Amino acid sequence: MFSLMFFPVYFPEVLLRMDCVGICGSDVHYWQSGACGPFLVKEPMIMGHEASGVVAKLGAKVKSLKVGDRVAIEPGVPCRYCEFCKTGRYHLCPDIIFCATPPCHGNLVRYYKHAADFCYKLPDHVSMEEGALLEPLSVAVHACRRGGVTAGDNVLVLGAGPIGLLLMLTAKAMGANKVLITDILESRLEFAKKLGADSTLLVCREDNEAGLVARVHALLGAHPDVSFDASGANASVRLCLLATKSGGVAVLVGMGAPEQTVPLAAALTREVDVRGIFRYVNEYPIALNMVANGHINVKPLVTHHFDIEQTLEAYETMLRGDGIKVMIHVQPRDANNPVKF
Amino acid sequence: MFSLMFFPVYFPEVLLRMDCVGICGSDVHYWQSGACGPFLVKEPMIMGHEASGVVAKLGAKVKSLKVGDRVAIEPGVPCRYCEFCKTGRYHLCPDIIFCATPPCHGNLVRYYKHAADFCYKLPDHVSMEEGALLEPLSVAVHACRRGGVTAGDNVLVLGAGPIGLLLMLTAKAMGANKVLITDILESRLEFAKKLGADSTLLVCREDNEAGLVARVHALLGAHPDVSFDASGANASVRLCLLATKSGGVAVLVGMGAPEQTVPLAAALTREVDVRGIFRYVNEYPIALNMVANGHINVKPLVTHHFDIEQTLEAYETMLRGDGIKVMIHVQPRDANNPVKF
Amino acid sequence: MFSLMFFPVYFPEVLLRMDCVGICGSDVHYWQSGACGPFLVKEPMIMGHEASGVVAKLGAKVKSLKVGDRVAIEPGVPCRYCEFCKTGRYHLCPDIIFCATPPCHGNLVRYYKHAADFCYKLPDHVSMEEGALLEPLSVAVHACRRGGVTAGDNVLVLGAGPIGLLLMLTAKAMGANKVLITDILESRLEFAKKLGADSTLLVCREDNEAGLVARVHALLGAHPDVSFDASGANASVRLCLLATKSGGVAVLVGMGAPEQTVPLAAALTREVDVRGIFRYVNEYPIALNMVANGHINVKPLVTHHFDIEQTLEAYETMLRGDGIKVMIHVQPRDANNPVKF
Amino acid sequence: MFSLMFFPVYFPEVLLRMDCVGICGSDVHYWQSGACGPFLVKEPMIMGHEASGVVAKLGAKVKSLKVGDRVAIEPGVPCRYCEFCKTGRYHLCPDIIFCATPPCHGNLVRYYKHAADFCYKLPDHVSMEEGALLEPLSVAVHACRRGGVTAGDNVLVLGAGPIGLLLMLTAKAMGANKVLITDILESRLEFAKKLGADSTLLVCREDNEAGLVARVHALLGAHPDVSFDASGANASVRLCLLATKSGGVAVLVGMGAPEQTVPLAAALTREVDVRGIFRYVNEYPIALNMVANGHINVKPLVTHHFDIEQTLEAYETMLRGDGIKVMIHVQPRDANNPVKF
Repeated sequence: MFSLMFFPVYFPEVLLRMDCVGICGSDVHYWQSGACGPFLVKEPMIMGHEASGVVAKLGAKVKSLKVGDRVAIEPGVPCRYCEFCKTGRYHLCPDIIFCATPPCHGNLVRYYKHAADFCYKLPDHVSMEEGALLEPLSVAVHACRRGGVTAGDNVLVLGAGPIGLLLMLTAKAMGANKVLITDILESRLEFAKKLGADSTLLVCREDNEAGLVARVHALLGAHPDVSFDASGANASVRLCLLATKSGGVAVLVGMGAPEQTVPLAAALTREVDVRGIFRYVNEYPIALNMVANGHINVKPLVTHHFDIEQTLEAYETMLRGDGIKVMIHVQPRDANNPVKF
Repeated sequence: MFSLMFFPVYFPEVLLRMDCVGICGSDVHYWQSGACGPFLVKEPMIMGHEASGVVAKLGAKVKSLKVGDRVAIEPGVPCRYCEFCKTGRYHLCPDIIFCATPPCHGNLVRYYKHAADFCYKLPDHVSMEEGALLEPLSVAVHACRRGGVTAGDNVLVLGAGPIGLLLMLTAKAMGANKVLITDILESRLEFAKKLGADSTLLVCREDNEAGLVARVHALLGAHPDVSFDASGANASVRLCLLATKSGGVAVLVGMGAPEQTVPLAAALTREVDVRGIFRYVNEYPIALNMVANGHINVKPLVTHHFDIEQTLEAYETMLRGDGIKVMIHVQPRDANNPVKF
Repeated sequence: MFSLMFFPVYFPEVLLRMDCVGICGSDVHYWQSGACGPFLVKEPMIMGHEASGVVAKLGAKVKSLKVGDRVAIEPGVPCRYCEFCKTGRYHLCPDIIFCATPPCHGNLVRYYKHAADFCYKLPDHVSMEEGALLEPLSVAVHACRRGGVTAGDNVLVLGAGPIGLLLMLTAKAMGANKVLITDILESRLEFAKKLGADSTLLVCREDNEAGLVARVHALLGAHPDVSFDASGANASVRLCLLATKSGGVAVLVGMGAPEQTVPLAAALTREVDVRGIFRYVNEYPIALNMVANGHINVKPLVTHHFDIEQTLEAYETMLRGDGIKVMIHVQPRDANNPVKF
Repeated sequence: MFSLMFFPVYFPEVLLRMDCVGICGSDVHYWQSGACGPFLVKEPMIMGHEASGVVAKLGAKVKSLKVGDRVAIEPGVPCRYCEFCKTGRYHLCPDIIFCATPPCHGNLVRYYKHAADFCYKLPDHVSMEEGALLEPLSVAVHACRRGGVTAGDNVLVLGAGPIGLLLMLTAKAMGANKVLITDILESRLEFAKKLGADSTLLVCREDNEAGLVARVHALLGAHPDVSFDASGANASVRLCLLATKSGGVAVLVGMGAPEQTVPLAAALTREVDVRGIFRYVNEYPIALNMVANGHINVKPLVTHHFDIEQTLEAYETMLRGDGIKVMIHVQPRDANNPVKF
């Protein structure tokens, strides 16, 4: 309790036997171009950050977990010392170690060591796949919290890919009144309808911008209180800014081109706040709750399954844009689920 | 556009043919004791403020409604000029005219004149009874917004009367993880379970306080992020303060005794914020959305129906504490509902 | 208290004998181009919205003022009925009547009728000129509140015109740690230094963007928590986005080009929030307090004075960009000030 | 970067040669009664937590400091792993190690080891005494942030001891319009006036409660937007609740009796929010800025000085209630100040 000497200590860490690892759009970016936004791959890098596993060994001082626990893995471990860490915004920590963001390896491996407090124990009825899906779901939860989605809000989601769909599900679980989702593919909108979209809008390159804004307002029966761009496409970012209700929030979730030409004044002089997101912070426990208590069903999003040995095939499937979410199984599927599919 | 003269104008008002009027606990207070909190009845007063009606006549400049529209009636009309009105907290306006708060008459009458912008048009599939129930539901929505209920929150509701039940339904519709509800009557807890309570706790006068706190934490599997007292009883207010998670919010909804002996320091030094509520503000549209889109089903709360001629009987039923919500029908039940029960 | 008839009423209004009217950049825009942002002048329009006057006559029900009161005039009167008015954001009311925003006339006249609750009585020691200056000061207060400026914040202000200078003064009065202000004119920076800028930065067209960001950080000794663009120039908007601290706020105050090419992702993926402002809301009383209690001294900003008969000359002075703030006097200067200059 | 082994590491710590240590009310509580609120002294404990020192030795990985740096010492080091630490509320961490809160020793010693990131380097012009005073100032800054004090607010401070005085100074530095401070001793009010109180009110046991509320409103010329109780006395807590403006905030800073009889409903039904505080969180850097940039002058608060050998005498002075702040010097006063008094 009172000493003047400096002593070394062990961090509370666990060794994990990996189970499920989903593929994210950023993984494909790194694979194809060696880069994603400002991050550049300079040396060979192991992929994977949407993952779940089973605790194989406990490090020192780990009390929250035991060997055999099935866990979802929050893939970023911050420094815990900087201003961002201390003010509750650890996702902005400049020294965060994040799976499969260079120069850090990912967790698409058989064994992985991780900070115990970033491993979240899954209840028996939550599957390992659902555990892996907490990662993109946390992105959606973070975006909805950044957008301040609350009861009664009318919400616009631009883009019906995995993140757009999760935004829709999350917004509704947080009490949104109506969610309108858009995409350039009719098939995605049909999928969105099955998942519970209140209305959908097919957009195409030739659409007149003012006309689109009017159709959004007509379909929602209101100007959206919160709009999310989940595509990154410039036309979509523009629509996000223009369609949002005065005094509302436009959240840009998709990482678009570094330079964008946008009608900023048309949004800002109506006090539409423009917010971006970076990953998530303190949202894994919320995402887990929402799946565990049945508020959100993420299972339908996984459309393809591959063994770890088929990883290349899995990535090629993802690259072709088939399906919604591609899952890689390091262990035989369902082997670690007490409640079977 | 530019004149130096002062001219008189008409406010946008409507004349309503009243339909449903629910009975609130405050109504019974006024009837029995001539007082409710700081408000004293000094002259005969018409009761009623949980109401719906049909537009019978339009005043000047009313564009949002037309004759025949079925509407829910927000019963308070503020001055629109004071600091509270201008800062979006019109419910705190000292000059608000509120139905059945002395010296203002209520709307348990056949015809009633009201500000058009405080009448909310009901969609066809929402019944007149649901319209009247927007009043207590708005109280619950206001309390949940004051408490900052959001996705993942664990919630404690103390008291399973109409407001406690509506708090439970609203918290869940806003994404709460688990809601624990307490009462001193087992029958009320059974009703709460049917409506969707995740867990219930029967409390009695002899319970040990520390023991109760421990049971709340055990049943919820967590310390509540937000706790609501919907009873006003001192034991319940105390539990609300003590059980809430450090850094959480305790919302006191029930109007209790003017002087209360409470363990303030035990809550405040853990930075549990203590908040009260007064009615609602800007929550009628949200409450209507939540009913209309099916997020909340308020219908099961109405356990008794009376015609306006049976008003005394209705009040006596309410006074005996039978059932949950007693509804008085100024028009034949269901007569104004396009979609019948 | 209970009637079924619709009756006309008088609004509480006052007739004002005008005293001081400042010239705003928007006034010059209307004069020169017949437009300002989305607003177009289609018929002859009286200018003026930065004004103070003396109450000449009371309308009905006016209790807060009496004849002879010296007042600052908040130039926009909203509808008081719409969602924006009821939620405390009356500045976004689509039906607001705002002085010298077409099609509404301004108050650069001898007599003007105005809503009594938008007239703020000046204490004896606050001059009529200071009263008129509450208008641009309210813009600065609103922007600082939108940016969330609070104790300890390091602040960047881009542009040292009247609004930039008022932003600097307001941020410091709200506890900002250090304010760095930039401009393209050395003379403006010297003026800013005299008013209390902690540091200044002269920028020019040839500056390298990354270099400018680095110089901002070096001069402030920190990344700015809140940055304000008060110029509208694209280079300045870009710097505002790029220099702000991760997790901070960039407030765009200047109305720039409708379409802007900006490095959005570089700000948004660091969760720099981008906010615009539209006028002010509920900030006149704050601005008045800050002047009255001496936290802010706005007097040095007025560099030129003209009588109302010299209005054209006043506008030409403003157009040439001489000085900071040009004031037009409808009454002899100082005539209505109990405490003389 | 990728290893499956658990390795021990050194925390970034520093060894400090202590300089100044102030005496806090809680120190006297421990000394006299062996307890302070819920904390009990069970073994002999070294006192001291309002302190500054000089870096004598660096532990591993310390980059922010160097030997010889003069630092203010934030006395609590949290676990960095729990939910509270991760959400930016590390002061609520149940495992925080806090100087002179049992069972942890304080830093009224000659050498002390501390986490490097909780040591804040003082600029040359800030004295070691000012460094020690950052501790109570951080309490005041935390309370003002919890209360949401901002420009234009009228503020009531109940109690003119060290914390009450610091609350007054901080509220004004954050832009408060007027601060009224109360006490039961005229001498303290005179001191408060010299420090800048806008108005003062002497209260005594016999005062009528409603009369006191009226006098507060009259002296402030407004109902306080934010009220602080800095005394813990029941009469003062009651006044805090009753005098605050509807919709305002009452912050209870003083730790009062565990059980208090209070007019809760009278505050809560007016939506006066009741908030407590526990120490501070992320406020040391702000407090340091406010002292360094001259917004707050804490120097006049230190009324008594003692050498470490005179500690008993220092505590007895504090116990008698002489003066405001008593400072113990472990090093000769001013020895470590580059800018001398």
